[in-house]
Amino acid sequence: MNEHDQVAAMLAAKNAAPIELDPARTALIIVDMQRYFTQPSFPFTDVFEKMSPGVCAGYLRRVRETVIPNIRRLLQQFRLNGSTIVFTAVGTETNDGSDLACWARALDEAGMSLLGSRIHPPVGDPSWQIDPALEARPEELVVNKLSAGTFATTDLAHQLRTRGVDRVVITGVVTDVCVSTTAREAADRDFKVVVVSDACTTFSEKLHQANLETLHVFGWIRNVDEVMRLTQREKMSQTTRV
Amino acid sequence: MNEHDQVAAMLAAKNAAPIELDPARTALIIVDMQRYFTQPSFPFTDVFEKMSPGVCAGYLRRVRETVIPNIRRLLQQFRLNGSTIVFTAVGTETNDGSDLACWARALDEAGMSLLGSRIHPPVGDPSWQIDPALEARPEELVVNKLSAGTFATTDLAHQLRTRGVDRVVITGVVTDVCVSTTAREAADRDFKVVVVSDACTTFSEKLHQANLETLHVFGWIRNVDEVMRLTQREKMSQTTRV
Amino acid sequence: MNEHDQVAAMLAAKNAAPIELDPARTALIIVDMQRYFTQPSFPFTDVFEKMSPGVCAGYLRRVRETVIPNIRRLLQQFRLNGSTIVFTAVGTETNDGSDLACWARALDEAGMSLLGSRIHPPVGDPSWQIDPALEARPEELVVNKLSAGTFATTDLAHQLRTRGVDRVVITGVVTDVCVSTTAREAADRDFKVVVVSDACTTFSEKLHQANLETLHVFGWIRNVDEVMRLTQREKMSQTTRV
Amino acid sequence: MNEHDQVAAMLAAKNAAPIELDPARTALIIVDMQRYFTQPSFPFTDVFEKMSPGVCAGYLRRVRETVIPNIRRLLQQFRLNGSTIVFTAVGTETNDGSDLACWARALDEAGMSLLGSRIHPPVGDPSWQIDPALEARPEELVVNKLSAGTFATTDLAHQLRTRGVDRVVITGVVTDVCVSTTAREAADRDFKVVVVSDACTTFSEKLHQANLETLHVFGWIRNVDEVMRLTQREKMSQTTRV
Repeated sequence: MNEHDQVAAMLAAKNAAPIELDPARTALIIVDMQRYFTQPSFPFTDVFEKMSPGVCAGYLRRVRETVIPNIRRLLQQFRLNGSTIVFTAVGTETNDGSDLACWARALDEAGMSLLGSRIHPPVGDPSWQIDPALEARPEELVVNKLSAGTFATTDLAHQLRTRGVDRVVITGVVTDVCVSTTAREAADRDFKVVVVSDACTTFSEKLHQANLETLHVFGWIRNVDEVMRLTQREKMSQTTRV
Repeated sequence: MNEHDQVAAMLAAKNAAPIELDPARTALIIVDMQRYFTQPSFPFTDVFEKMSPGVCAGYLRRVRETVIPNIRRLLQQFRLNGSTIVFTAVGTETNDGSDLACWARALDEAGMSLLGSRIHPPVGDPSWQIDPALEARPEELVVNKLSAGTFATTDLAHQLRTRGVDRVVITGVVTDVCVSTTAREAADRDFKVVVVSDACTTFSEKLHQANLETLHVFGWIRNVDEVMRLTQREKMSQTTRV
Repeated sequence: MNEHDQVAAMLAAKNAAPIELDPARTALIIVDMQRYFTQPSFPFTDVFEKMSPGVCAGYLRRVRETVIPNIRRLLQQFRLNGSTIVFTAVGTETNDGSDLACWARALDEAGMSLLGSRIHPPVGDPSWQIDPALEARPEELVVNKLSAGTFATTDLAHQLRTRGVDRVVITGVVTDVCVSTTAREAADRDFKVVVVSDACTTFSEKLHQANLETLHVFGWIRNVDEVMRLTQREKMSQTTRV
Repeated sequence: MNEHDQVAAMLAAKNAAPIELDPARTALIIVDMQRYFTQPSFPFTDVFEKMSPGVCAGYLRRVRETVIPNIRRLLQQFRLNGSTIVFTAVGTETNDGSDLACWARALDEAGMSLLGSRIHPPVGDPSWQIDPALEARPEELVVNKLSAGTFATTDLAHQLRTRGVDRVVITGVVTDVCVSTTAREAADRDFKVVVVSDACTTFSEKLHQANLETLHVFGWIRNVDEVMRLTQREKMSQTTRV
């Protein structure tokens, strides 16, 4: 067995450890499923298409065909369970992008030089909104961040702790940037972390897989079917009965 | 060109952007080069060897033959330049590991069940010390963390800001866990980030490469030779002259 | 001279140190000047009036006659100078107040038991809005916090740093709780702090004075006239000329 | 009744609310009881004496006669109960004080100009050590901070949360600066806060009293006898029996 396969097998063994997802203590975090990340014809994908025509095709298809339907399944069940639901978003709070972290401002500059427009929209802009297929309800949290990680520039840790949440189920885009950073931050702040392998994606399937492999260190990787089973009411009442 | 190659080419193009490393504004961060991470026969590698014999061989060889010599080169030059130098470490500050983030406590539990000892040593333990090949000088910072990211549980952001540092050169182990998380945190906190590709490593070369690819988003990937050139005195005085 | 007078004289001597307020590096922070803090007939003052009739009279008069007019003067000049302007607010982001820090939830409980309503409004509620006399412009920052200190639960530090702001002029209500905590947090995060003595107030003049005395340790106490002089254009161009 | 007395009466009524101090969930925090704060003939008190001869006499007497004996009583009982014990300290981690928050560097500069030496010692210096009357045991936490508040520049929040601590009993010096800031930070991070009125002090009794009055907003003010009763084993077993 080569080096990587040996490491991957070890991580898979670790991943077999059980994880319980009591709805009262578990939040669903939906990372950056905003229109400008989920749909074509916004500067985010436009700038990448300009750099490398066709580079976004697989990504946008996976978002549409897999990620959105899978998050919808999770949303329905977590809502039914009364769990905490958090949508994250990225947008400038000052209109001019000057408040974004430097690496995100560099993306805006690429957008300016290639397209004449910045990539990150202002908070409240139509393209900043959560994809209509996943709309947030009034009682659900939408936190805007200026960073890849959600914890760096929002009050999310405080929001979760005051509600008694100590574990998070993470979904959204893109796996290797905002999803991975948010998962790492959460685990470092002592939240148990489940990343849903088929409810997140990125531009390269290979980077998606490699990043999920590393995230085994920080918590659990589960697919949507598994999370649905871990959080279904029937199972929970059975558990209570036993 | 397949999806991943197309993405990789785009990231490589981004990486061609210039970065300046003025010694007064740049810190060298050496992540977790502690004996128990760099040398065999400590619980860290022992537990992995127990799980999967031979899994650490390549990692330990790369640490010894590549990472340590390359960090030594950087250390010498950054010291000559009077730049800020930071060593990070992981260790329990309460002896019993109860203070580590939950994902790190899970590693300790694996150590307990497989070897009868925890993986993470107490602060000050000989195995907690920085590898003797890289010893910290008294005026250099050694920050102990309880997390993968250095910013989550130390005063590093404050330390860097009070010294006027706004860019960091990151090295150490392991690429995909503590190095990557620290790089992401730094970029999210508005520090410009350079990750030195041949001054860090992890257990799988494939995960090392994949994680470096993602880190292009957060900053610059440079090898040791390039960082040496970017920080050499001759070049700097030429710059000043011009 | 008695103990306190001796300490106060020492603090006054410290306060004589000069402070420069370059508009590009200075932000005006207006703490919690929301309707429910600035006007009668909201649960905030109602609950205190219920506990102790008349206890809010002096506070509300000082807000109306001194604090609001003085903040208006500062606002006008800081806007003219193009300085960063930040309004803070307190409100629940989950409607039910469960996300507020525990000490603020205790206030809500007092409101529930004495008046049948919570003290802190939801974000966006008319009573949550900034007092109309001070309305925020679209390009100005309004940050909602769940805490007394603004830095604990908002991205304000990031917002200030990405704009190159390294000093803050703090005003608002109430001096000894949210103003004082925000000033302490700012100074601890390496921002130079000016608290404007006659642009903030609290329920007891005595506590207002005592808290300002302690805040000498963290920065500078100046009155509105002094801050107006320190930030007026004429003075600044003279400085530049000299 | 005048304004302040009316406010004080209202705060005293609030303070009558009960607070439980289960030893497993409660930490004793001893703020900055380092030699250079507790004993004469170090630059900290020397610089104030130089500015205003005699200004430290009352403070040093209260530290010696009241604060140290009272903290010793608490220490003994909290140790017996197996509660978490935390000592905080202030010291430069870079020898030159450049890492301290700006307001603390200003104090160092006053020391340099009046005495030729900085006020804040390096970590590990004899004057940096905790007062020998209160020595920390190896299993107790000593966290060094660069700020007035302990949470701003240490991992204390993480340390408390990973141990299941959700309430803190705060003692030490000086009431209006480091004690008050730490208490505010703790309450803002959702820890229940008890400040022990006769186990902390500052340079002016009047500022001590005024700051304690404000701290009623953030939690509970109790004296040492009350905290001893709230944490004594007999009472606890009675509680359990009932």
